[in-house]
Amino acid sequence: MTQFHETLEIIKRGCDELLIEHELVEKLKAGRPLRVKAGFDPTAPDLHLGHTVLLNKLHQLQELGHDIFFLIGDFTGMIGDPTGKSATRPPLTVEQVKENAKSYTEQVFKILDAERTQVVFNSTWMDKLNAADMIRLAATHTVARMLERDDFSKRYKGNQPIAIHEFLYPLLQGYDSVELKADLELGGTDQKFNLLMGRELQKHMGQAPQCILTMPLLEGLDGVNKMSKSLGNYVGINEPPQEIFGKLMSVDDNLMWRYIELLSFTPLTEVARWKLEVGAGRNPRDIKVQFAQEIVTRFHSKKAAEQALADFEARFQKGAMPEDMPEISIQAQGGEVGISQALKQAGLVDSTSDALRMIEQGGVKLDGEKISDKSLKLKAGALVVAQVGKRKWARIAILG
Amino acid sequence: MTQFHETLEIIKRGCDELLIEHELVEKLKAGRPLRVKAGFDPTAPDLHLGHTVLLNKLHQLQELGHDIFFLIGDFTGMIGDPTGKSATRPPLTVEQVKENAKSYTEQVFKILDAERTQVVFNSTWMDKLNAADMIRLAATHTVARMLERDDFSKRYKGNQPIAIHEFLYPLLQGYDSVELKADLELGGTDQKFNLLMGRELQKHMGQAPQCILTMPLLEGLDGVNKMSKSLGNYVGINEPPQEIFGKLMSVDDNLMWRYIELLSFTPLTEVARWKLEVGAGRNPRDIKVQFAQEIVTRFHSKKAAEQALADFEARFQKGAMPEDMPEISIQAQGGEVGISQALKQAGLVDSTSDALRMIEQGGVKLDGEKISDKSLKLKAGALVVAQVGKRKWARIAILG
Repeated sequence: MTQFHETLEIIKRGCDELLIEHELVEKLKAGRPLRVKAGFDPTAPDLHLGHTVLLNKLHQLQELGHDIFFLIGDFTGMIGDPTGKSATRPPLTVEQVKENAKSYTEQVFKILDAERTQVVFNSTWMDKLNAADMIRLAATHTVARMLERDDFSKRYKGNQPIAIHEFLYPLLQGYDSVELKADLELGGTDQKFNLLMGRELQKHMGQAPQCILTMPLLEGLDGVNKMSKSLGNYVGINEPPQEIFGKLMSVDDNLMWRYIELLSFTPLTEVARWKLEVGAGRNPRDIKVQFAQEIVTRFHSKKAAEQALADFEARFQKGAMPEDMPEISIQAQGGEVGISQALKQAGLVDSTSDALRMIEQGGVKLDGEKISDKSLKLKAGALVVAQVGKRKWARIAILG
Repeated sequence: MTQFHETLEIIKRGCDELLIEHELVEKLKAGRPLRVKAGFDPTAPDLHLGHTVLLNKLHQLQELGHDIFFLIGDFTGMIGDPTGKSATRPPLTVEQVKENAKSYTEQVFKILDAERTQVVFNSTWMDKLNAADMIRLAATHTVARMLERDDFSKRYKGNQPIAIHEFLYPLLQGYDSVELKADLELGGTDQKFNLLMGRELQKHMGQAPQCILTMPLLEGLDGVNKMSKSLGNYVGINEPPQEIFGKLMSVDDNLMWRYIELLSFTPLTEVARWKLEVGAGRNPRDIKVQFAQEIVTRFHSKKAAEQALADFEARFQKGAMPEDMPEISIQAQGGEVGISQALKQAGLVDSTSDALRMIEQGGVKLDGEKISDKSLKLKAGALVVAQVGKRKWARIAILG
């Protein structure tokens, strides 16, 4: 059992819930590679670190020797929005699905081992289902069971419409598990109901039910909201090394430990040692640098990570940047904020005219560089260290 | 409008509800034959007069020049019970469906003009639907709308399970209307919700919505419960002429008028005259004889009807059968009742031993014929006139 204990520790690291642990242990004991399923939308992805929480877990499972089925749910994507209410969800063509899948895999193979990942499309089997098959599938569950799902329940009680086909989607998703003969399915915490459908349908069709591993949503750079592009609190995996490094260096210590749990592949024993060291007085900034370098290395290269660190130190540390400075979030208007407005809101100047004067006098630096453009705009998503005169500093995040 | 007034009177005769009358008038005004849809189960039928209420209406529409689509819902029948809970609903094979349809049409063409009836099977188009089509169909309606159906609503509130595919069946039934481009659909009162689905789906798919005509359930010979084989209060259309005639002669006057409204093709003006005559003292029995003869003629022949009347008069009227006699219903045990028990329960004898003695002495007649078999059993569904001695009479119905 000890060998499984260690394996289980890795599998459960950072997870929200594992159902059902003793079943998973039985499957591990059998010794054969598990068939691990994770489903993804067929829309064009632009991944940020939040998306990689689940991919990291797949990577860990891959390292443990299991088979990853990277399932692209293109079948429903090719139907589009059948209620016709959403103009933004037109049906995808086969070509679009292929393109999106290519873009997807180019990104995820920075984390997953392409050689050991099977990319599958559920249209492969769904296209073969006919109306009678759908009826048989629908017959496996009751309306009451479906209304147990949180969002359905809320909408039904709140008299918000639920179209009947929405009851079919969890069944289709579950049916994917049957087709893949999945041993384990991964998903976000909000996917738990749908993952359970896979279990139930497998049982219904005489298969051993899959185990379920749910992963939490990753907090964004603000440490509060979930990481999302629209909130501007994200780190995109295709961002330049300096951006990734700088953004990760900006997170507070609590969030750093959370990110390490969910984003780093550093063994838990090592992480535990770090925590002890920090408790004993080590500067957490050292840990943050190591972590930020790990992430930049993953998405760019070791060399890029070293360069990003060197740049970072050149700009901030060798200057007079204080260890602590106020952190300010400013809401963009129409996607941007004027520099003088930003300096005022950050409390670095008393008025926008004060700001303009300081820029004229060469007393304003952004990320260590003097600026002279008084009409400079800071874009949503930007994170800059602003300095006014010698002593006024602030880290400014522009929210979208 | 007067020409449509008369047509409408015929169409509405005996109906429960017509939706929407002014739309139907518009359709009639257009002058082309209406496409009239009525759906039937693909199971083997054994029709009784209750089933013919709707067929009679189709006949009337046919007489008015409209096109009848006799739709056999074989698609769902060939799926069977997908929950697997009902051992009595195994899937039908294509051969069984064909056999059942043959048996069906042999019976209904005693009422409908075979030359002017199109028998269609919904598997023709349903077999071509795929899973994506089903999803699009399901997207047209909400869960809340479906739960408005009376039986769904009751089951949901009563925590009785509703399998999800049950929500798909009304949609499929409605989709039949789209495929048939139906102008008018007929159904039982209990089918109203499903008939409305046809209207809604036709609108959704850009067709003019069908009108709906619901027909009531016919009361059985007891005048209380709906006519059904299991209650034994029915007149089967394949029963011998004497049986049909005798059973119809046994109904009370109120039920006679009801039957004439729903089962007779005698024009309403003529029926109104009869009512006036009976009000003025004419014996309703004369009307009943005419009606019973019409029905026997429909399912056998004019000659058979005349013979049945002659037999009836020979057995009862020329004898001493009283006009009024008690009518007794007896519940069968295991499908039958012993003669002595029946006589006792009918109050014609004081005890079963009394009954046996009377049979021995030749003092018991059934339907005018002396009986000698003391172990005679009366089967469920039987309706007999029993006579004990000279003066004791009863009409006995054995319920199943």
